[in-house]
Amino acid sequence: MRATCILLCFFTFLVASSAHPGKKKQYKPCKELVLYFHDIIYNGQNAANATSAIVAAPEGANLTILASQFHFGNIAVFDDPITLDNNLHSPPVGRAQGMYIYDTKNTFTAWLGFSFVLNSTDHHGTVNFMGADPTTLKTRDISVVGGTGDFFMHRGIATIATDAYEGDVYFRLRVDIKFYECW
Amino acid sequence: MRATCILLCFFTFLVASSAHPGKKKQYKPCKELVLYFHDIIYNGQNAANATSAIVAAPEGANLTILASQFHFGNIAVFDDPITLDNNLHSPPVGRAQGMYIYDTKNTFTAWLGFSFVLNSTDHHGTVNFMGADPTTLKTRDISVVGGTGDFFMHRGIATIATDAYEGDVYFRLRVDIKFYECW
Amino acid sequence: MRATCILLCFFTFLVASSAHPGKKKQYKPCKELVLYFHDIIYNGQNAANATSAIVAAPEGANLTILASQFHFGNIAVFDDPITLDNNLHSPPVGRAQGMYIYDTKNTFTAWLGFSFVLNSTDHHGTVNFMGADPTTLKTRDISVVGGTGDFFMHRGIATIATDAYEGDVYFRLRVDIKFYECW
Repeated sequence: MRATCILLCFFTFLVASSAHPGKKKQYKPCKELVLYFHDIIYNGQNAANATSAIVAAPEGANLTILASQFHFGNIAVFDDPITLDNNLHSPPVGRAQGMYIYDTKNTFTAWLGFSFVLNSTDHHGTVNFMGADPTTLKTRDISVVGGTGDFFMHRGIATIATDAYEGDVYFRLRVDIKFYECW
Repeated sequence: MRATCILLCFFTFLVASSAHPGKKKQYKPCKELVLYFHDIIYNGQNAANATSAIVAAPEGANLTILASQFHFGNIAVFDDPITLDNNLHSPPVGRAQGMYIYDTKNTFTAWLGFSFVLNSTDHHGTVNFMGADPTTLKTRDISVVGGTGDFFMHRGIATIATDAYEGDVYFRLRVDIKFYECW
Repeated sequence: MRATCILLCFFTFLVASSAHPGKKKQYKPCKELVLYFHDIIYNGQNAANATSAIVAAPEGANLTILASQFHFGNIAVFDDPITLDNNLHSPPVGRAQGMYIYDTKNTFTAWLGFSFVLNSTDHHGTVNFMGADPTTLKTRDISVVGGTGDFFMHRGIATIATDAYEGDVYFRLRVDIKFYECW
């Protein structure tokens, strides 16, 4: 019995340690997903292909051309296909749905609130994201604030990289989702 | 002392297990709330009764009629009464405040970011929600990402069902909030 | 070995207790930050100084004057300087970026979704916020739903107070961030 206790002690010690780690510790994700999503902004002429649209803009701007001054104040709503690789034409495994907001006057940064709605043989559920996206940096970290289905109650960090873009109309984001809290 | 230790071992083992459970385990909520909220969209003629308004829309749409093509791009801001039952005229126990975004071109889905501000004899505090809402499904799960007051630091899942709707002007949502992380 | 076990037992007991505390317990933050941010709304004449802009409004309102009826339906996008004290001209330690939504017809309340992007000698990382802001109350609690960098995976509560305001053009918020979940 004492041996069992010692074992349990040791086990609980390990578990408790991993749940309450010291500062700057290097954490290991309990789950990881790398996905791509593809955003085609409506520009007045591409209604059939567009997957996002500018729906709000500051005084003086319009809804088909991103505002000057680094697009400050534009809100775009999107419903973008998610793929496993960087090919827009690969079979989508889900949709990235939500909004981004251009929120700086003197450089390009966005604020993101969106969800991944995954519906494939491998993953079924949603992942919810929120955070600042200083788009000129090579990679940006945002928060994974929750999930449902296969991602029930998950939390983590998503590292976003702009994988490609074409003018103001198309961009592709690579999202490396690391879950550190799995259930 | 050893007996105490064994007991503690056992206790901590149980606690640690529940905090780090295996995949696909069936979790039991630590708290549950079922509430209704009622959304009356401003349509140009119901200013007195309306509890929400379209404030953003894509090129070509206006702010009193939901956009065609499944309302894609509409953002509505709302301040809706919350009731304990499905009666719009029951005494409200709080307000649902935030926004929803119609975000699909070929079906009806929304993206939700909002808070419940509860102020009744039973509950005092806020609950914060975020997630994708494919409104044509019977039930949809979104994330409860935080709370304050009675819901300090809580997390969970909210299951939303469209309980009733009348055209594009009124809809009532039933929200079954299951908290899995209580403090 | 038994002594070690007892110690471990005791340690894990403490840790487990703090992770799963009883209701209404008084929690102690694992980290605390007090910061100020400064919002200057674009009013049609202050383009150079403005740090935020109304980008969406309901039918009948415009984008340079906050809507009547308690500004209901206005969405403002902001990129506000963050300072360590209440002086707008202090060297900024970061930017508050995101949006607020005026969401009540008969009083002043807002809904907030934003991030602190901190970049100083003391703090490097982002903190993500969401919640209801009944601006007429002296203090309001919102959720800290995640963080990155120095605030990796953090959660907590932010208590917001309106520290000063000048008409509808300038306001300064004091934000007392208490993290209860540090990693």
